[in-house]
Amino acid sequence: MALKKKPVTGMKDILPEEMEIRDYVIGIIKETYKEFGFTSIETPCVEHIENLSSKQGGENEKLIFKILKRGDKLKAVQEKGAEDENELADGGLRYDLTVPLVRFYSNNANGLPTPFKSLQIGSVWRADRPQKGRYRQFYQCDIDILGESSNLAEIELILATTTTLGKLGFKNFQIKINDRQILKAMAGYSGFSEKDYDSVFITLDKLDKIGMEGVAGELLENGFSQESIDKYLDLFKGFEAAENGLQYIYDSLGEYLESSVKTGLKEIIDSVSAVKSSDFEIVFDPSLVRGMSYYTGTIFEIAMPKLGIACGGGGRYDKMIGKFTGKDVPACGFSIGFERIVLLLLENGFQVPNQKKKTAFLIEKGISSEKLCEIIAQAQKLRSQGTQILVARMNKNKKFQKETLAAQGYEEFQEFFVK
Amino acid sequence: MALKKKPVTGMKDILPEEMEIRDYVIGIIKETYKEFGFTSIETPCVEHIENLSSKQGGENEKLIFKILKRGDKLKAVQEKGAEDENELADGGLRYDLTVPLVRFYSNNANGLPTPFKSLQIGSVWRADRPQKGRYRQFYQCDIDILGESSNLAEIELILATTTTLGKLGFKNFQIKINDRQILKAMAGYSGFSEKDYDSVFITLDKLDKIGMEGVAGELLENGFSQESIDKYLDLFKGFEAAENGLQYIYDSLGEYLESSVKTGLKEIIDSVSAVKSSDFEIVFDPSLVRGMSYYTGTIFEIAMPKLGIACGGGGRYDKMIGKFTGKDVPACGFSIGFERIVLLLLENGFQVPNQKKKTAFLIEKGISSEKLCEIIAQAQKLRSQGTQILVARMNKNKKFQKETLAAQGYEEFQEFFVK
Repeated sequence: MALKKKPVTGMKDILPEEMEIRDYVIGIIKETYKEFGFTSIETPCVEHIENLSSKQGGENEKLIFKILKRGDKLKAVQEKGAEDENELADGGLRYDLTVPLVRFYSNNANGLPTPFKSLQIGSVWRADRPQKGRYRQFYQCDIDILGESSNLAEIELILATTTTLGKLGFKNFQIKINDRQILKAMAGYSGFSEKDYDSVFITLDKLDKIGMEGVAGELLENGFSQESIDKYLDLFKGFEAAENGLQYIYDSLGEYLESSVKTGLKEIIDSVSAVKSSDFEIVFDPSLVRGMSYYTGTIFEIAMPKLGIACGGGGRYDKMIGKFTGKDVPACGFSIGFERIVLLLLENGFQVPNQKKKTAFLIEKGISSEKLCEIIAQAQKLRSQGTQILVARMNKNKKFQKETLAAQGYEEFQEFFVK
Repeated sequence: MALKKKPVTGMKDILPEEMEIRDYVIGIIKETYKEFGFTSIETPCVEHIENLSSKQGGENEKLIFKILKRGDKLKAVQEKGAEDENELADGGLRYDLTVPLVRFYSNNANGLPTPFKSLQIGSVWRADRPQKGRYRQFYQCDIDILGESSNLAEIELILATTTTLGKLGFKNFQIKINDRQILKAMAGYSGFSEKDYDSVFITLDKLDKIGMEGVAGELLENGFSQESIDKYLDLFKGFEAAENGLQYIYDSLGEYLESSVKTGLKEIIDSVSAVKSSDFEIVFDPSLVRGMSYYTGTIFEIAMPKLGIACGGGGRYDKMIGKFTGKDVPACGFSIGFERIVLLLLENGFQVPNQKKKTAFLIEKGISSEKLCEIIAQAQKLRSQGTQILVARMNKNKKFQKETLAAQGYEEFQEFFVK
């Protein structure tokens, strides 16, 4: 039986042209984040099924690729009959890098400095319905600051991320920022009860797609009072009309919002705006929700011009480490949408800068050992000087061979014949 | 319930100190292999269970982490009752990079040049019994040349690998080389029948550990004739005593060995010796077996001084692509033992060269927004000049904070107070 040539459903082979860009992006990311004092770590791709199913992952928990138990453990479950599919599995592929990071920190905190600035680049897996441009295995690239309760964490994360995007040539983008406390205060001020906040935010999250009227309609359908809905949407309308939207929201909410949240958020926006080195603006967006319920404070998102979807995001999650250790540690992270960044670069015909010169040595078959040695010695010398040399036997169809090599960037060809 | 802090059994968290070395090694590997014309590719970590169980993986096929089917497919299997655990799974984590590479090549050959020189660095998984220094998830780093039937493939692979090891500071190591044709000819010459070759080679593979007498004993136990055993071991004894061991084996085997194999292997050894730029020797070793039965020709291995185990290896596997496409394509690969290399560097106290200067800015809590902006602006300026700057709030225990930062390489501290 012939073996299967295609990758498994929803995952993809990455060809050299794309890998070149990916490697370049990873290089810039590592270099820049290192300048900000972030240090690389890695966690296993396989996590305990209990950790992955612990309600930290929201909707992603429905998309776990589970790892079958092995040997006697599997036999035992099969003999008694598995009632739940989780009994058949003892691990799963991580669906994000945040849950593993929090486990990592809980396990290793003793040997780590405070604050701990972590950089992770790695694959994650989600058994999503396959669709164009969306894969079941994809890279995430996260920076997190653990143990820093002040807004210096947010400022550093946003500056590091935007400096990286700037170095990659991105311009004229936005960092949208909000705070879960503001979201809650706006809902509370409008008269929604606390138990309904998550439901209200799920609807609000659709504002970009369905507009104010759509949001109003959905909230009404969900049984909320017209009065609350009107009061809520008036806040957003007032924000849009105001010259200083942030101040308008602060003034409207009054005591519904703690003053420390107010000054903290304003300080982030002001300092990032003052010291930024890339071409972007940071804007307060009271309708920014971010899906994950684990966020406890600031939340933010990268919006690229003319792109309908976010290119990354993050926020503060001060309550997650306590789930592992019993003791909360302040934490804040920012994830770059690595695959989207690469896709944008590919679509814009991005060329990796400062490429080395590529030369191909093509050797006719039957050349003597002595001559072969000379040719290879010459190649080794050029390589040690930094030229990229491919040494290969000449194919029967030399023209086609040269064409495929030229497509890979080989500009110069040297041919060596038997005589 | 508290979540699990330890990684899953047999896998490990990688801390910043080790990651720094890993990143450095990967950088050198990519840079050097690129000079030889290798191009990076990536395949999904999850492979079709059929491909992984196709007898290409030898003993590794018993160690597959299998991925549970999902949704209706899983329900269907559970309702009818799974007779075989493979029915419960539709994928598995790759146990090496060779099977996925061959699938990749079969799927994408049309768009690839000939020869295709591939570089892969990535994790593989084996559900081995956990033991010291051996993990269930580990990196492999493979280079392969597909579509090159001549020994230029072997020469390029060995030069690229040894140049890389040299750049990483390894000296005085050996590349052991042999050919499956020689292994077979030696067994045939000694009177073993072809169906027994694999069994004989499994015993021969233990020569390093159990010596000549041990090998003789095990072969006898396995029912082979004393005459064949004596003749076989006399070859190895003669080889060891001879001044030119390769020539001795060639002379002894006479017509049992094709002359193209003889000249091909000699040419590899001679050219590599002539043009090598690192401090190593390439030696013919007729007892080198390499486990995988898919090898069809040359096989080789890296032996580090005083280290009992191989630090990498590879060989020619001309018959594997045909299993996917129906048409054989010559193929040859060399895998560096990435984890062993990193372990050796760690054990030898290796320091990554040309590290950037690291400075920590420690800011007292309560500093004004204006002052904070100034400090961050100063940090941004130094970063853009290449200094690594950590900006953090001063901890209550400043002495301890400085100590843990110093352990991460921070040499200079600047402190900023409220007044």
